[in-house]
Amino acid sequence: MLPVVVVHGGAGYIPKERSELSISGVCSAVQAGYTILQGEGSSMDAVVEAVIQMENNPAFNAGCGSVLNIKGEVEMDALVMDGKTLGSGAVSAVRNIANPIQLARLVMDKTSHACLTAEGASQFARSMGIPEVPLESLITEYSRMRWKKNLAPDANPVECQMLGTVGAVAVDKEGNIACATSTGGMLNKMEGRVGDTPIIGSGGYADNLLGAVSTTGHGETIMKITLARLILFHMEQGQSAEAASDLGLAYMKSRLEGLGGVVTVDPQGHWAARFSSNYMAWAAAQEDTLHYGLYTGEHFTQKA
Amino acid sequence: MLPVVVVHGGAGYIPKERSELSISGVCSAVQAGYTILQGEGSSMDAVVEAVIQMENNPAFNAGCGSVLNIKGEVEMDALVMDGKTLGSGAVSAVRNIANPIQLARLVMDKTSHACLTAEGASQFARSMGIPEVPLESLITEYSRMRWKKNLAPDANPVECQMLGTVGAVAVDKEGNIACATSTGGMLNKMEGRVGDTPIIGSGGYADNLLGAVSTTGHGETIMKITLARLILFHMEQGQSAEAASDLGLAYMKSRLEGLGGVVTVDPQGHWAARFSSNYMAWAAAQEDTLHYGLYTGEHFTQKA
Repeated sequence: MLPVVVVHGGAGYIPKERSELSISGVCSAVQAGYTILQGEGSSMDAVVEAVIQMENNPAFNAGCGSVLNIKGEVEMDALVMDGKTLGSGAVSAVRNIANPIQLARLVMDKTSHACLTAEGASQFARSMGIPEVPLESLITEYSRMRWKKNLAPDANPVECQMLGTVGAVAVDKEGNIACATSTGGMLNKMEGRVGDTPIIGSGGYADNLLGAVSTTGHGETIMKITLARLILFHMEQGQSAEAASDLGLAYMKSRLEGLGGVVTVDPQGHWAARFSSNYMAWAAAQEDTLHYGLYTGEHFTQKA
Repeated sequence: MLPVVVVHGGAGYIPKERSELSISGVCSAVQAGYTILQGEGSSMDAVVEAVIQMENNPAFNAGCGSVLNIKGEVEMDALVMDGKTLGSGAVSAVRNIANPIQLARLVMDKTSHACLTAEGASQFARSMGIPEVPLESLITEYSRMRWKKNLAPDANPVECQMLGTVGAVAVDKEGNIACATSTGGMLNKMEGRVGDTPIIGSGGYADNLLGAVSTTGHGETIMKITLARLILFHMEQGQSAEAASDLGLAYMKSRLEGLGGVVTVDPQGHWAARFSSNYMAWAAAQEDTLHYGLYTGEHFTQKA
């Protein structure tokens, strides 16, 4: 059953013309993570690499392709967590870097802290030699179009809010578990808005004894129930990865009318990609098989 | 049993010369919260007022009296959570305001977001008409002395790290539950460091169905186990507020060698003030009785 890696490219509204880009993007990302796991790489190496692939892919709301805040700028959040130590690293409202997930990992590996925000995160990035990139390099034509469209009086708020975060969970051959989540946040968010993504227990959680979860959906709702930690509590009480994921998502829907999605693994390598939204691009790789899907109930397989 | 309010003034090292200031500070704060609960005020009004009292009291590491970061500046974090809606408001790494907890509440009440950070939080504060205060007004002689002392080669890192956050939990006559937590963070922290305080599930959590917790201690350790949410999961499984608090703190100690403290309430008004550190200034008010203590096992009472 090990190693295994599962990724998501965001739950919620995916315009038809972008669905193929989303599917090919999550498949490429999971392949990159799986290649690392088949070699000498750790689960942390794998989830970070998978997320970097999606940050670099303009089809996703993370890194290049991030949604724009109210001022038309890009501020990004990211989180990694290491299930062996329970150590984590996060950045919030960080600007002008290509790969927030790499910076989150450096916060974990190179500081005594678990989260750095805004200008403090930028200073740390500079001290680590991470190149500053111009704002324009993170903005796509599509994200600018959506930002402008959302300023219009007839904007559809559902369509505008539900642009997904990306994330990954993995278990390596040693049984070490990790998660990574990265996002541009919510379209037209206030400057300095921090969502669920960099919040441990909400955007993700990993514990070698329990498993790992990476979440996507409406951040403010996910935070209300600390969705990632909630799912792992269900697993601690004997639920499978799939049943626990469904219980967590059902609770968010029944108590808060909130929709979202998750990817989940347990220490044995059982995995789940579940969502209460209409769509979530997801992919998994295990035992040389690639699994992927987009709509509810969809599950394709091919050789990894 | 209702209403009830419980506050803490931080777990960890409290220099002897400051222990009386800490005790009188938590007693004043809890009285202020209790007066609100005896009137028409909500649990949210009570916890915010109790925390404001401690932010304004230079004896505590929050608001005026906050510890200084590596650059000798003050950056503060705060969180409120409303157990009725599960709504929360937080600010992280905010500067130049007297009462971060008030700003956290405004994030909850006046925006669609749950957390604003750094300059974005400051912009929001200005838009709400909150006066900017000079850095110097937040720095005490004592905090500057400790900052300088900590830069010395013979600094005692334990003494320097363990300066407590403040927090409060309350249940009002209607059965509504709230928590509030506020801090200057960790002495000599990096610029932009965000600790557990503004992180939902770590620095605090409130749910009318379960109860509420506000935490204090080493933030990076508390985050690893989402201590507030963990304690409420134990209560969900039938543990009392006191037993659940002890279970959460014992787990943090056994798995991570981490020390800290919490104040906890359940929906019926049972409360606990528990800590694994040597000291935690705490106070509670219920049924016209004031309870307070500082050392392990200490529990004084007098008429509220």
